[in-house]
Amino acid sequence: MTDGKINVTVWNEFWHEQTSDTVKKIYPDGIHKAIGEGLLQEGSFNVNYATLDMPEHGLTEEVLKQTDVLFWWGHCKHGDVKDEIVDRVQKRVQEGMGLICLHSAHFSKIFRRMLGTTCSLKWREIGERERIWNIEPAHPITSGIGEYIELPHCEMYGERFDIPTPDKTIFISWYEGGEVFRSGVTFERGYGRIFYFSPGHETFPIYYDEKIRRILCNAAKWAAPRIQREISCPCVEPLENIQKKN
Amino acid sequence: MTDGKINVTVWNEFWHEQTSDTVKKIYPDGIHKAIGEGLLQEGSFNVNYATLDMPEHGLTEEVLKQTDVLFWWGHCKHGDVKDEIVDRVQKRVQEGMGLICLHSAHFSKIFRRMLGTTCSLKWREIGERERIWNIEPAHPITSGIGEYIELPHCEMYGERFDIPTPDKTIFISWYEGGEVFRSGVTFERGYGRIFYFSPGHETFPIYYDEKIRRILCNAAKWAAPRIQREISCPCVEPLENIQKKN
Amino acid sequence: MTDGKINVTVWNEFWHEQTSDTVKKIYPDGIHKAIGEGLLQEGSFNVNYATLDMPEHGLTEEVLKQTDVLFWWGHCKHGDVKDEIVDRVQKRVQEGMGLICLHSAHFSKIFRRMLGTTCSLKWREIGERERIWNIEPAHPITSGIGEYIELPHCEMYGERFDIPTPDKTIFISWYEGGEVFRSGVTFERGYGRIFYFSPGHETFPIYYDEKIRRILCNAAKWAAPRIQREISCPCVEPLENIQKKN
Amino acid sequence: MTDGKINVTVWNEFWHEQTSDTVKKIYPDGIHKAIGEGLLQEGSFNVNYATLDMPEHGLTEEVLKQTDVLFWWGHCKHGDVKDEIVDRVQKRVQEGMGLICLHSAHFSKIFRRMLGTTCSLKWREIGERERIWNIEPAHPITSGIGEYIELPHCEMYGERFDIPTPDKTIFISWYEGGEVFRSGVTFERGYGRIFYFSPGHETFPIYYDEKIRRILCNAAKWAAPRIQREISCPCVEPLENIQKKN
Repeated sequence: MTDGKINVTVWNEFWHEQTSDTVKKIYPDGIHKAIGEGLLQEGSFNVNYATLDMPEHGLTEEVLKQTDVLFWWGHCKHGDVKDEIVDRVQKRVQEGMGLICLHSAHFSKIFRRMLGTTCSLKWREIGERERIWNIEPAHPITSGIGEYIELPHCEMYGERFDIPTPDKTIFISWYEGGEVFRSGVTFERGYGRIFYFSPGHETFPIYYDEKIRRILCNAAKWAAPRIQREISCPCVEPLENIQKKN
Repeated sequence: MTDGKINVTVWNEFWHEQTSDTVKKIYPDGIHKAIGEGLLQEGSFNVNYATLDMPEHGLTEEVLKQTDVLFWWGHCKHGDVKDEIVDRVQKRVQEGMGLICLHSAHFSKIFRRMLGTTCSLKWREIGERERIWNIEPAHPITSGIGEYIELPHCEMYGERFDIPTPDKTIFISWYEGGEVFRSGVTFERGYGRIFYFSPGHETFPIYYDEKIRRILCNAAKWAAPRIQREISCPCVEPLENIQKKN
Repeated sequence: MTDGKINVTVWNEFWHEQTSDTVKKIYPDGIHKAIGEGLLQEGSFNVNYATLDMPEHGLTEEVLKQTDVLFWWGHCKHGDVKDEIVDRVQKRVQEGMGLICLHSAHFSKIFRRMLGTTCSLKWREIGERERIWNIEPAHPITSGIGEYIELPHCEMYGERFDIPTPDKTIFISWYEGGEVFRSGVTFERGYGRIFYFSPGHETFPIYYDEKIRRILCNAAKWAAPRIQREISCPCVEPLENIQKKN
Repeated sequence: MTDGKINVTVWNEFWHEQTSDTVKKIYPDGIHKAIGEGLLQEGSFNVNYATLDMPEHGLTEEVLKQTDVLFWWGHCKHGDVKDEIVDRVQKRVQEGMGLICLHSAHFSKIFRRMLGTTCSLKWREIGERERIWNIEPAHPITSGIGEYIELPHCEMYGERFDIPTPDKTIFISWYEGGEVFRSGVTFERGYGRIFYFSPGHETFPIYYDEKIRRILCNAAKWAAPRIQREISCPCVEPLENIQKKN
């Protein structure tokens, strides 16, 4: 944060946008660029991009070292992400970097790695209406959002969502087709903060929505490191004056 | 639980007991046998044993399928546990099997896998006094334990313990040398319950202590599966009568 | 629990059933009797009844002393419940008695007393459809319930529900009119367990529904005291051998 | 916060300082002034004082309306605080005001009101050593504190502390006499944040300690309102297009 801005890296598997005409039309430069655009407009962030096909998936030691908050969007290429890169990202989150996992990143290696559960859910793609209720109006992530957000078309993600009990459930979604979903949830792991936010299917222009962009900006500020520090497991001397006994 | 008993498997890396005379004298048949003895005396459990040097570390699909609660003791051989076995255990915990991690199993692959953090801590081996305070007198794990347990000699494990905020902090330990530690903590991951309990260094006869054994029996009952079920990620039809829209 | 059964007291303000013909037709003997009937059928409970118009609202020291789990149904007479009775109930919950607050008991003195928040929510009475999703399939309260329960007609209770972050969110409801609600939530206060469950409007026959009854039975078992003990604030002697210094 | 500063009101029962020579010597102007001095030195706060003997205990509607964060110190006069003032403070906390309860304020009406438990603990006054371990190094309340703080002389407060499971346990204290205590804990109730911090006995100069002052400043910033809003319980129209059915 040398210039007072938060350094964000937006990671995208960047596959659908290169292979599906529908998706290409909505996100011609990739979902990552649409997310980054929303962050840049707000003015508090420097934005870097990284994609699956870059060397080390664009997540070198150097890049991660300079990243305060990492956004993650992935869908059908989770299995192609190398384990050593996931190890590296996990270590950085433990040391303080923020992590924001979007939409189908519920099934990304990094999200499952941080939580320890399968992160399974129900799903359906018929473009139904979603209403995202703001359950925590005082939380910084919901600042300026109001009581709810409505998305006219979305992919449905329904409960049971197999995650640990969140620190805070920020949003709960209602779907026209009859399901509910904890669509915004926070966790802390090590010194790092994690936010999962479910809206963002590649066939709908959700990352251009002003309120969705506001949430992503809020979340990036919330997830910015409070401290950054390596974690060790030291052998220590007694603080009190006791004798060695065994 | 065909005979109404809970099927426990006690896993031990079983190394110190075969290589250190000090440890051999305290646990001649291995720490796992001392833990199992305490469970068998209580009468509610069938006990199976598994060790690192057995094929598949003694944790075959068949063994895990018949295990309600898995105890884990490991110390200097964490790295020798094969990842595919850890995958298998993790899947079973997610599906409902209980997991009880003891002492230096804070650094086991399976515990770190379930929690997503480094599970680091401070430590010291001078055989000092530990007093384990019961913070949750109404929790089933502390049934019959009283206000605290005192261990005359222990390895110190001190904060900060790098774990996610526990569902419940059951025990907090006081050490003669000046540290504190959340020495008994519970988590849920998927359908499975997890209990970490820090006492149990290999050079002290802690698993013969009647109150420690009581806690392990209580914990095994608490962690026994409430349901056991595979977790899937299904595509579902709408429950309400809506039209496909995109 | 002298006969191995759990002693339940079902408290009802018992007003609508005596003043509204609609309600009288559905619950001719009072909502409390319909709730009690479901408990008695199951076989694990002794059931006692208490209502607002009884001396001390039917909640004498003697009655509470013999109550393991207290059900509470109230709606328009919350203000008539005497504060000293609320004090008495609160003390018993702190000492271990279970408390199950139903439907509009979200606004009861005892529920607000235990939680410290306003317990406000949104509401609407048009008899719409409610679908109660089971978010915690492994929790004892949902045993035998399946993925969801559907109520054809209900009063809508919508978020934001002003409660502290629950220990566990067991159920989340979907409403035809577009809202969601954390309709089943658990808390612990002192040694006592608390379950709030929102279905149960007086103009719908919800307490005759077999699955609703199953949930109430499960909840009463879950909330039964694990210990019962007065809570004091004692001055204690040091355990370690230190000198008085000031 | 019209001038960009956080408006703090420090409330003190202000009794020991007027009746005990020992206490008067340490806190000649009252504990509230020593707390306020630490806040003023830091520079981010406007500080107002209120004491038990003032009209309405110094907590008029007007004062509370202009208070962002309320500190509370009380010990032997909890019973003299009028219930209607406690009602008023509770409402303000629910609407967003921060509340920081210090030392024996664990037994204050307002703290027990917000939490619903007895807030009992063990205690001892022999001036022993306390070591306050920082369990959450990434939390804003511990910014700049380091691994632990040591107080040479304190009143011991020991577990079991009868509080609901905290959102975060920030500090755990070790005492020379053998006890432990969750000495810094956070809660949220309504839109308000609550921090309880146990050090601060009237016979020791704890509120002059630089690290203790740092914690109080950190806590006041953390507890400052994120939103301030009245909480209502509205009847709402359906968002979806459904027909009234009953």
